[in-house]
Amino acid sequence: MKVSIQLPAPPSRDYEIVIDELPTIALEGKAVVVTNPKVAGLHLRRLLEHLDAKELFVVTIPDGEEYKTMETIEFILDRCFDHRLDRKSTMVAFGGGVVGDMTGFAASIFQRGIDFIQIPTTLLSQVDASVGGKTGINNRYGKNLVGAFHQPRAVYIDTYWLGTLPEREFAAGVAEIVKMAVMFDEKFFEWLETHDLHDDANLKEAIKRSVELKAWVVNQDETEKGIRAVLNYGHTFAHVIENFSGYGSYLHGEAVAIGMVMANRLAMALGMFGPEEAERVEKLLARYGLPTDYAIDSAEAFYDRFFLDKKSHDNTITFIVPERLGRFKMVKGPARETVLEVLAHYEKGRGREE
Amino acid sequence: MKVSIQLPAPPSRDYEIVIDELPTIALEGKAVVVTNPKVAGLHLRRLLEHLDAKELFVVTIPDGEEYKTMETIEFILDRCFDHRLDRKSTMVAFGGGVVGDMTGFAASIFQRGIDFIQIPTTLLSQVDASVGGKTGINNRYGKNLVGAFHQPRAVYIDTYWLGTLPEREFAAGVAEIVKMAVMFDEKFFEWLETHDLHDDANLKEAIKRSVELKAWVVNQDETEKGIRAVLNYGHTFAHVIENFSGYGSYLHGEAVAIGMVMANRLAMALGMFGPEEAERVEKLLARYGLPTDYAIDSAEAFYDRFFLDKKSHDNTITFIVPERLGRFKMVKGPARETVLEVLAHYEKGRGREE
Repeated sequence: MKVSIQLPAPPSRDYEIVIDELPTIALEGKAVVVTNPKVAGLHLRRLLEHLDAKELFVVTIPDGEEYKTMETIEFILDRCFDHRLDRKSTMVAFGGGVVGDMTGFAASIFQRGIDFIQIPTTLLSQVDASVGGKTGINNRYGKNLVGAFHQPRAVYIDTYWLGTLPEREFAAGVAEIVKMAVMFDEKFFEWLETHDLHDDANLKEAIKRSVELKAWVVNQDETEKGIRAVLNYGHTFAHVIENFSGYGSYLHGEAVAIGMVMANRLAMALGMFGPEEAERVEKLLARYGLPTDYAIDSAEAFYDRFFLDKKSHDNTITFIVPERLGRFKMVKGPARETVLEVLAHYEKGRGREE
Repeated sequence: MKVSIQLPAPPSRDYEIVIDELPTIALEGKAVVVTNPKVAGLHLRRLLEHLDAKELFVVTIPDGEEYKTMETIEFILDRCFDHRLDRKSTMVAFGGGVVGDMTGFAASIFQRGIDFIQIPTTLLSQVDASVGGKTGINNRYGKNLVGAFHQPRAVYIDTYWLGTLPEREFAAGVAEIVKMAVMFDEKFFEWLETHDLHDDANLKEAIKRSVELKAWVVNQDETEKGIRAVLNYGHTFAHVIENFSGYGSYLHGEAVAIGMVMANRLAMALGMFGPEEAERVEKLLARYGLPTDYAIDSAEAFYDRFFLDKKSHDNTITFIVPERLGRFKMVKGPARETVLEVLAHYEKGRGREE
């Protein structure tokens, strides 16, 4: 005999991304702010002035990808139990991508899931990490291999925090903005070519557009089976670059900038995207001091490394390339020779030579 | 400015609980069976004969509540990475409640969530753990404090495995069946009074009815804000009993049996449930060798221990009691004196004396 279990559709959840000066946020019940020592030192006082909670605690975790571990998750959870948080409590992620990922994952498994809100303090986390609900940790097998989909209750993006952000990290965030434009929105790309993101009003506009585009993508595909993969434009190459260079040489956004230029070259090799378009993308990235070239020792070794990535189920890599500005194309398993040819341009740093 | 994020409603998910001889199960992609040494020794061969997977691995975890830890989760995850499982792989939980909880939680966070199926081998896990999607681990702060809601893709209940189950564990499962009947279904209770669950056809019928009732409850309230709390009938007392006795003295179902009898007495003290009804419940439990009495050292100490439970947000305990057979009542914060009076019956084992 059988019993058919019909699970009720979970309630649809909406939330707001506020791109503005941080308002005063009222939190019911207890709250824990998770942050890192650098952000805390610079900005914790201002944050606390804007949080209105019954009881509030601060947990500081070390900064850096190498601390995106289960140990850090357990550290956060233990502090939450120490402070007797319950199912009605809220976690507040106050920092960049690492803090956001750690807080979101901890919130997703604390008593089987409690609310969290995001207050991202880097440009990258403001445009990238605040939409999509991905949380995760690294382990010795790779990055973000363990985690959960857990949506924040709200996201507050205040460009004020960026005042203390190093220029390189600012540019790394710009790379993700450019990525969204090249993939999905030609008009936005043209707008970026004519507007300086160091101007606060322009920056807010660009963050807003990026976030809207990402939300549009994610909404079509919450669990990354289709279009969400397009967000990996530049990333397939970037992961290998990061892998070869050792994490820490390049900021993630910098590796993505190089990766996008490589992907553009692959697009051209496949008969898409024109050299002028590729030039415009490179120029826009370079304007913010982003790297666009990279020296590969061996194209073959670089190629082989694609297949260590978690996204390759069946030894086929899907490359995301621009068909033209504002329109993406997913290319499943292009000929090995074609990819090697593109990579050969970069052997011994020849990427810029022709 | 603001961006409103409308999250798409996740697709509604249905699955089947098959109560029958285990069919051959076809699994796409790789699969990992998670089990414990005892179940593996007795039944792994028969299981493997019924699994049809491309590649199949077996992970054995130690048995017992004390191994429901994050370390065990990481052990399972590491083996899955060793065997290069990917997002299309499936985990198979083959064992009792501990194996089910651990496998479900590991599956929920492996690459942000993969499928798992349940093949419960104890009566308790067949009637209780196979519906509801609760997974979780214990830590030094308490039981099931960290975890996720993760629904199985399918559940296969085969009473064949129960052939090697010790009688005490069988009875512990019966306690959960009786619980469902007392709370929700008078007719089912009457049926239980006249049908021996040692008969396989009766047992399957009782499992089916329990599972249906639990599914009905869970469907109304997936995240335990309302009626799902009714499943805690007997458990509020049981947790304290387990806490005082040390885990391991009583099986969970045994503690629940005592807890139900205590809750019935509380119901009577509050003017509900008749002594005849209480007697019928006690008699049914006793028929399967379940304990219905318990010696409390101090009613006050027992009472205080309620408030260490995670479910008490604001120092109010909600007791679940039967109003009459088949109808539950949630009693929020009954007078301390009333509860103490009920507990006093059990001081020095006086529970049976009057």
